[in-house]
Amino acid sequence: MGLIDVKSYAAGQWISPDESARNFENAVTGDTLGRAGNGSLDVQTMLDHARNVGGPNLRKMTFHDRARLIKALATHLNSQKQALYDLSYATGGTFSDHQIDIDGGIGTMFVFASKGRREMPDSNIYLDGEVEQLSKNGTFLGQHIATSLQGVAVHINAFNFPVWGMLEKLAPTLLAGVPAIVKPATATCYVTELAVRIMLESGLLPEGALQLVSGGLGDMLDRLDCQDVVSFTGSAQTAFKLRSAPHILKNSIRFVAEQDSLNASILGPDAVVGTPEFDLFIKEVQREMTAKAGQKCTAVRRIFAPQTQVEAVIEALSARLAKTVIGDPQAKGTRMGALVSNSQKHDVLEKANIIGTEAERVYGDPENFALNNADANKGAFLPPMLYHCASPDTAERIHDTEAFGPVSTIMGYSDLEHAIRLVNRGQGSLVASVITHDPDVAREAVLGAAAFHGRLYFNNRDSMKESTGHGAPLPHLVHGGPGRAGGGEEMGGVRGVMHYMQRTAIQGSPEILSAISSKWVPGAKETPAPAHPFTRTFHELTIGETIHTAPREITLADIEHFAEFTGDTFYAHMDDAAAKRNPFFPGRVAHGYLLLSFAAGLFVEPNEGPVLANTGLDNLRFMKPVEAGDSIKVRLSVKHKTPRNEDYGEVRWHVTLTNQDDEKVAEYELLTMNAYTS
Amino acid sequence: MGLIDVKSYAAGQWISPDESARNFENAVTGDTLGRAGNGSLDVQTMLDHARNVGGPNLRKMTFHDRARLIKALATHLNSQKQALYDLSYATGGTFSDHQIDIDGGIGTMFVFASKGRREMPDSNIYLDGEVEQLSKNGTFLGQHIATSLQGVAVHINAFNFPVWGMLEKLAPTLLAGVPAIVKPATATCYVTELAVRIMLESGLLPEGALQLVSGGLGDMLDRLDCQDVVSFTGSAQTAFKLRSAPHILKNSIRFVAEQDSLNASILGPDAVVGTPEFDLFIKEVQREMTAKAGQKCTAVRRIFAPQTQVEAVIEALSARLAKTVIGDPQAKGTRMGALVSNSQKHDVLEKANIIGTEAERVYGDPENFALNNADANKGAFLPPMLYHCASPDTAERIHDTEAFGPVSTIMGYSDLEHAIRLVNRGQGSLVASVITHDPDVAREAVLGAAAFHGRLYFNNRDSMKESTGHGAPLPHLVHGGPGRAGGGEEMGGVRGVMHYMQRTAIQGSPEILSAISSKWVPGAKETPAPAHPFTRTFHELTIGETIHTAPREITLADIEHFAEFTGDTFYAHMDDAAAKRNPFFPGRVAHGYLLLSFAAGLFVEPNEGPVLANTGLDNLRFMKPVEAGDSIKVRLSVKHKTPRNEDYGEVRWHVTLTNQDDEKVAEYELLTMNAYTS
Repeated sequence: MGLIDVKSYAAGQWISPDESARNFENAVTGDTLGRAGNGSLDVQTMLDHARNVGGPNLRKMTFHDRARLIKALATHLNSQKQALYDLSYATGGTFSDHQIDIDGGIGTMFVFASKGRREMPDSNIYLDGEVEQLSKNGTFLGQHIATSLQGVAVHINAFNFPVWGMLEKLAPTLLAGVPAIVKPATATCYVTELAVRIMLESGLLPEGALQLVSGGLGDMLDRLDCQDVVSFTGSAQTAFKLRSAPHILKNSIRFVAEQDSLNASILGPDAVVGTPEFDLFIKEVQREMTAKAGQKCTAVRRIFAPQTQVEAVIEALSARLAKTVIGDPQAKGTRMGALVSNSQKHDVLEKANIIGTEAERVYGDPENFALNNADANKGAFLPPMLYHCASPDTAERIHDTEAFGPVSTIMGYSDLEHAIRLVNRGQGSLVASVITHDPDVAREAVLGAAAFHGRLYFNNRDSMKESTGHGAPLPHLVHGGPGRAGGGEEMGGVRGVMHYMQRTAIQGSPEILSAISSKWVPGAKETPAPAHPFTRTFHELTIGETIHTAPREITLADIEHFAEFTGDTFYAHMDDAAAKRNPFFPGRVAHGYLLLSFAAGLFVEPNEGPVLANTGLDNLRFMKPVEAGDSIKVRLSVKHKTPRNEDYGEVRWHVTLTNQDDEKVAEYELLTMNAYTS
Repeated sequence: MGLIDVKSYAAGQWISPDESARNFENAVTGDTLGRAGNGSLDVQTMLDHARNVGGPNLRKMTFHDRARLIKALATHLNSQKQALYDLSYATGGTFSDHQIDIDGGIGTMFVFASKGRREMPDSNIYLDGEVEQLSKNGTFLGQHIATSLQGVAVHINAFNFPVWGMLEKLAPTLLAGVPAIVKPATATCYVTELAVRIMLESGLLPEGALQLVSGGLGDMLDRLDCQDVVSFTGSAQTAFKLRSAPHILKNSIRFVAEQDSLNASILGPDAVVGTPEFDLFIKEVQREMTAKAGQKCTAVRRIFAPQTQVEAVIEALSARLAKTVIGDPQAKGTRMGALVSNSQKHDVLEKANIIGTEAERVYGDPENFALNNADANKGAFLPPMLYHCASPDTAERIHDTEAFGPVSTIMGYSDLEHAIRLVNRGQGSLVASVITHDPDVAREAVLGAAAFHGRLYFNNRDSMKESTGHGAPLPHLVHGGPGRAGGGEEMGGVRGVMHYMQRTAIQGSPEILSAISSKWVPGAKETPAPAHPFTRTFHELTIGETIHTAPREITLADIEHFAEFTGDTFYAHMDDAAAKRNPFFPGRVAHGYLLLSFAAGLFVEPNEGPVLANTGLDNLRFMKPVEAGDSIKVRLSVKHKTPRNEDYGEVRWHVTLTNQDDEKVAEYELLTMNAYTS
């Protein structure tokens, strides 16, 4: 094919490269593949478009609307992914690598879409935590919320995952209601460009929600303010340069960084030769060294094994690495492709040489390795290379040099405490794995090493069939790490969405908080229900709509009958003397479940209507014992509503049981599914 | 008294100032009061002491242990606070100001102590969120945790609250298990030194947990790493200088900043003259302008009123300000004392002059104001000064100039949208208040302005009796703000503790996660209970201890009887045809509360024993309907244990109800209080 001109997408226009564009190469052949960049890209117009058009468009949508948008985008990308696979071979990756990138990216969007629907409200204000009691009588309360930042997210992505790297940031950004400007690394920007084009051409995205810079960002970062976010993935050197900019620092502009990481994998003290864990370890390490030719931010760079097992690990791992067919990723049998470019290959060799000053290469020779249907002098090929460092305590560079390719170093440790000390010398990593069947080893590793890691991955015979791999960041879990890894976090479900929102503590009366949170807060106005709320549809019900029931007396006969009927003859209900000895009770008391059941009897409207089912109950607390002769009555209020599908939604009711003296005896939240129509 | 030599406390030694020390003054008399600083302070030894002694000592303690420590420290400080009051007058503050500082600081510790006990586990691993399902069969799961950073927290504090400013950072730091090195601002470091001395002399603190630098930090910040945290409060200029240090940036060292802020207060469109809100507004603004002589990071700097109300606000506020007696804080009748120093006074006047280029001074003349028993030529006195800006849209400096004293500017707005736009021109603030009785105004203010604020404070006639004040950061709520305010967060309950911990995503089998979290995860090993668990004490019970009950059949007679007995004749239980029309049910089904009650009947051990009471129930979900003829059985497992007092603790039980086909019909967590002894 001819050279690819990779365009940018700015304020609704596709912009071609100009004479300032930079070339990029085909990783497999070393030939020039295309070019990207336009020196006269108008970055201020892009920012304005995002802020003035994209942001308002997205903020009008609720979290559920945005989740549906993300799901639709993912579905659309999924239907078009063959074109992405086809284009991706030039990056050097194999089909499996493309799956990590493309299917992994799409899957990440699906998870965010699902979490947006399940864990966020159908509103544009997210509630962070519970109501805080700030006053004795409850007329002044606190509630943390989060709202969309009113600026733009600038995503500066790495070359290794042109699709996943974009989508794992885009999904939480869109869910937050913030427009994105995506800047892929030039080496693989043609794949990102296609993915962006597919999404834009779907017509699903609101105007201004997504723009693309292929090539350089110009002075865009100097035009950001406190409502903007930079999310950077790449080298520590570039991160340092960007985050040191006085404009960024003076304006406290959010800068999320994911950079270098000397990820470790530990073979547990228990996981010796002959255990299922030993074999699992070899398999995981080999996969991490060779997948994406080691160009994964989470790849295992440092391998730790009990001193007694080092030789066996080297032997088993070398044997497994020897089976890795390297070559043209489209050629039959190839298991590992090329690095992304020859300059990347040279960088890896340079770093490997640094590692070589402290460790001996025990597997792989970059000057001499077999290739499947490819030319080692043209494409950016390297074999997996395993180093062994005999003195990890005194070594320095193996703990701070990331060769971003199929290069790892094995070291022995004396005991777990020693292993943890060595692992932590990475000074902050994205992930460490521990292959162990011993829960005590796991707990010790957490107490010793978690503070240095964004993720700790444990695997053993129990979990290996379903485990997702040391190197796989998952949308449910945070991805990032302290220190050398950049100090940032991405993903982690709703946590990842928060990077694009502002957390704000709200203080006010129950009435004010209810209006802001769309959630009835005790103390706020109770609207008398115009009819029994069980006769009203989901949409008819209003927040704060309340009924008060008549009282019902609890008799001793009730308690005795309930005990006999249910079999619950717990002494506090049956034995007055024993109950009196108990610090909680004045004597025999009614069963908690008796109260719940009678309460339902008091508030339920029996006839067929919009209430479809009682699906659950949350936060039940028994606050005061109920004795025979006491009576209870119920206040039932609509607390919150969440649409669930096309036909019905969940209603959360606030239920308070009080006694004849108006003292609370129990409080809980009841869940029902309610039809939209009656 | 003689000059005060303010000492540092380093590695267990009190270090006196040396010839490099700087002087500070008595704010009221302008005389030199003392000196602080020692050029040969060994900061590396201090760091080593914190890391090698203080950290390990604190990490051995659980969150509950640390919470008890904080409570004991607060109680001790409370008993010694008269000495702190006495010393504080030289800072220029009144007794009310001291209460904000000293009682406010102690109160903050009590809240953190209480939250540590109630919201954190009796362990040293905090669980952040729920278990994440990462696999179909549940053999591989995720859980976010947080563990103590293994370094040191360096707290660089502002001069205005020498006690609160230290304690609001120290409490979450200690709760996190991290040692602190406190560096107060020199102007008021003598008060901090006394508070530190009181805490150290209590003997409560473990060795190495708390050190003090009076004077400069030397090159301490260049010796930090990824396990350390800098928490800075002060000017934007100093913050910029410190956070720009290459060492800080290269190592992604956590830097929490709270700096300048142009806090606003909005008189709501509804809160016109004659409403209770108008009077409340005048009162709040006057208090914020004069408390601590306006030297509060949260003080109201910008006042927004509907254009029609501006004149009335100026009039009412001026009248109220005129009643503010300024002078010697120890003299009878004084309501507002001095600024902390004459240099601070000059800085405020300089800033006021800048504001004066865009606004007219309508109240207060720094050249001419009455003083109560003080000399305006010696002490750092200023009157409250109110400016009026007639063209806030074109003005620039009123939105970016913080005069850190009793200086505010009032501006008119045309409608709420206009007010929000003006407020947001602060480019990130700690707090804005809105005085309104209209919930719709509150919601609009949140959607428009929350993204620019760390806190939004609403007040009106409903909450004014219990409200805590625009300017009061509360330990329950985050304190901090985006952009100009520094981009940091402090306090906010457990959120504030997280700044000193590392969040880590843990992946592994249920067994591994249970061991790490001290919380039984479904799928982990079930330990057969050696006797019925209700017969075993709190301490005898082990996580994962489980019983399985016999099954019980549910008959139609049971359902009918339960309906009649409780009064719950909901159609899904009574009317087969109606139930069949419902998307959830195959026909008539058993009541959820019937299942709960029968389940209790199946698992309860009736005799008097260590189980004292069923106190509640969480996360109940009904998963599959139960029809007449089905049977249910129960699995009851010990999920988690939390000591609550000297006599008993809370046991959280995982309860699963399954039917005759082993399908789950309901799942929940049951709470009981269990005695330590039987």
